[in-house]
This record gives sequence, structure tokens and C-alpha cells, in this order.
Amino acid sequence: MDRIPILKVGECLLVTIQVDMHDELAMTLQQDLTSQISKYASRGVLIDISSLEIVDSFIGRMLANIAAMSRVLDAQTVLTGMQPAVAITLVELGMSLPGIKTALNVERGMQLLAEYIGENRELEEADGVEV
Amino acid sequence: MDRIPILKVGECLLVTIQVDMHDELAMTLQQDLTSQISKYASRGVLIDISSLEIVDSFIGRMLANIAAMSRVLDAQTVLTGMQPAVAITLVELGMSLPGIKTALNVERGMQLLAEYIGENRELEEADGVEV
Repeated sequence: MDRIPILKVGECLLVTIQVDMHDELAMTLQQDLTSQISKYASRGVLIDISSLEIVDSFIGRMLANIAAMSRVLDAQTVLTGMQPAVAITLVELGMSLPGIKTALNVERGMQLLAEYIGENRELEEADGVEV
Repeated sequence: MDRIPILKVGECLLVTIQVDMHDELAMTLQQDLTSQISKYASRGVLIDISSLEIVDSFIGRMLANIAAMSRVLDAQTVLTGMQPAVAITLVELGMSLPGIKTALNVERGMQLLAEYIGENRELEEADGVEV
């Protein structure tokens, strides 16, 4: 297992994290994700962590990094499927996941991204920016 | 890692297989998948194997089982993201994956499922079956 697959679904990229992350895997994911956002001109990134039972500060930082990188490439990041225990731990650790929107499941996450992409497009059209 | 997450996307269920399968994991996946098809009345199952570099007879049989179980629950299975080397091995092993449609990537797989669901709905309407 040397890389996490990234699935292109419409204008979004979908990543499901199922395995324990380590430095190299996280680095590869960031590289793959940024190059795919650039390649497909993706507007959204959806990261599903429903199989993670523990989110430590390393994963938290990685998610925040991915969100920041996506943002400068003009893509919104949505995190889905967080388990209740993970939410409790995150707040107790004082990690607020800045810049990352969350949704209960992939379906709602997709809706959130669709709304965001729609809104952005309207703004761009109002500003006269070519889409 | 005790179970593979199943993502609900519209009328379909999406599974990405990233880790080595063993007996128990395969069994759990089959149980989870069949119970979710039943719960959400899903019409399609999309299995992405883009991160698998080896598909042996065990995985092949598991995929065939999942496809057969889905079919009796009225859901079509599509396999996506097969690596070229895997395709070569499968044919050399004489495994033809009966009952499983394949597509190059998740996006095309989704289209295939959407077409299948659309066609089936037309047939049901023509037969006067309530959908």
C-alpha cells in the first residue's frame, strides 16, 4: 500500500482514508491530490474518514494542510463521516480543523460542494470573470 | 482496520478496496454491503480496485460473490480502476469475472450505472410495475 486512491467524481475528487497514515503516505497523498486538482481543474475535495477510529494531531495537521493547499488551488475541502468519538477527541485536543467544512456523510458532503461550486460560479459570472 | 467503508452516493454504493483482503474482512464487506443495499434500496454497487496491484483467485471469487449477491437484491455491480497488469493476470488465470461489468474509472462506472438504472426504470414503467 503505497498510495491512497483518488477518485474523480464530476468536478470533485473523492478520497477515502482507510489505513493508518504515516509521513510518506501523507506526503504522497498531498502530492497526488494537488496534481489531480490541477490536472482536472477540480473545484472540490471530499475526504471520507468514516473508517478512522482515531484522529491524532498528525492526521489533523495533514487534513488542515490538504485543505489549505486545495484552497490556494481554488478547491473547497469537505470532510465527511467523522465518528462521534473522533469529534469528541478533536474538541478535547483543541483541534478545530480550520478551513475545513464537515458533513455527516458523503452524500451531504457532495451536496455541500455542489452548493459551493454553484455559488462560486454565480459570483464569477456576476464579476464578469469567464468560467 | 476491521471493515471497509461503504459510501452512499445517490442510488449507488461506492466501495474502494485499498487493503489486502482476508477472509474475515471479505465476509464483513459482503454482510455490510448486502445490508446497505437492502437498507437504502440501492440500485448499483461500484467497486474501485485502482490501488490493488494483485488480484488473486480469492479476490476474484469475492468480487463474483458480491456481484451475485447484489444481483439477487436487484443491484448491478460495476468494477472500476483495474490496473493493466491486473487485467493481464486475470485473463492468464482464466478468470472472466462473470456478472461483473467493468469501467475504466469511477466516473465512467457511475455513467454505466446511471444508464442501467435508467433503462431498468423504463422497463419497469413499461411493464406497469410501480417504482
